[in-house]
Amino acid sequence: MAYNIAPLAELINQFERLPSIGKKTAQRLAFYILTQPKERAEAFARALTDAREKIHFCKECQCLTDMEVCPICADSTRDRTTICVVEDPKDILAFERTREYRGIYHVLHGTLSPLDNIGPDQLKIKELMARLADGTVTEVIMATNPTIEGEATASYLSRLIKPMGIRITRLAYGVPVGSDLEYADEVTLARALEGRNDI
Amino acid sequence: MAYNIAPLAELINQFERLPSIGKKTAQRLAFYILTQPKERAEAFARALTDAREKIHFCKECQCLTDMEVCPICADSTRDRTTICVVEDPKDILAFERTREYRGIYHVLHGTLSPLDNIGPDQLKIKELMARLADGTVTEVIMATNPTIEGEATASYLSRLIKPMGIRITRLAYGVPVGSDLEYADEVTLARALEGRNDI
Repeated sequence: MAYNIAPLAELINQFERLPSIGKKTAQRLAFYILTQPKERAEAFARALTDAREKIHFCKECQCLTDMEVCPICADSTRDRTTICVVEDPKDILAFERTREYRGIYHVLHGTLSPLDNIGPDQLKIKELMARLADGTVTEVIMATNPTIEGEATASYLSRLIKPMGIRITRLAYGVPVGSDLEYADEVTLARALEGRNDI
Repeated sequence: MAYNIAPLAELINQFERLPSIGKKTAQRLAFYILTQPKERAEAFARALTDAREKIHFCKECQCLTDMEVCPICADSTRDRTTICVVEDPKDILAFERTREYRGIYHVLHGTLSPLDNIGPDQLKIKELMARLADGTVTEVIMATNPTIEGEATASYLSRLIKPMGIRITRLAYGVPVGSDLEYADEVTLARALEGRNDI
């Protein structure tokens, strides 16, 4: 290509390496940056390094925070007897939006996936076991994703935790609120039937 | 939201301000950055500031370059009697890919759009007229987009350039190569009929 500008090619390359950003979008985003005021590009650059430098894992729940302990773990009004185990820090946001859950969390940062070489040592399982050791926690809610890997991870953890005499629960399966039964898949519908409640 | 980290919120905000990136994608991209090695975030940040600092308009054709004059304008083998007028630097890439065009370019950086307050002074029209003044150029190819704004801009420029005695041409309209006539829109098909050639 005759029209080859090294700094532009590098910026396109950086955008392209982001997940879900293809060649065309990367080009469009890079050209967009060039049309913006210099301060805008600098603010973006600063945000990137700042976020990466200041944010790390909460030393208790392993979620992301820019403090030593995240605001949820630091909140003395939260119920420390219940731990909700999630795969990803983003899942905490989903639970917090419900405004129903008052316990604390633990982030695994992934699921067991032998094919991808992700075993128990790659997840924050050691840290979870350490938190359960002092006997404060009486219930662990398994809130991994309802996928094969999520299920496998939940059942692996259950086997690990059961001997400690802690209650282990799993999120209920069923049809999503507001959905149309006509479009529900058969596995979900079967689980909803199985878990039916008296009214 | 209990789970509020200022540097993360700022990074999400920066991603969200990019075109075609919504709230969810911005979140996903920001979280992705946090999972990457520090050097990766720094390289991205550097690419942003580098591109914005080093790249500016070519003083001849107004395309983007990190040199004083872009490689196409600097290339002595290009035909300096023909200028192809495009809206956007990306359009040059499209023409260069054809490997058919050996002339030079001029980038307008937009089209006339009175509703958006974009008049002739906001485009690189003055610069184009200056390049035509010395009499070297014998043909101007209008290669603005085949849209209302593109057409209006082309016809505005034609009226401006005609008195200089320079030949003005417009890209041919017609059905795209490899397309299916069944799906061609009626305007395109009418133009293709109008411009039919003997074989």
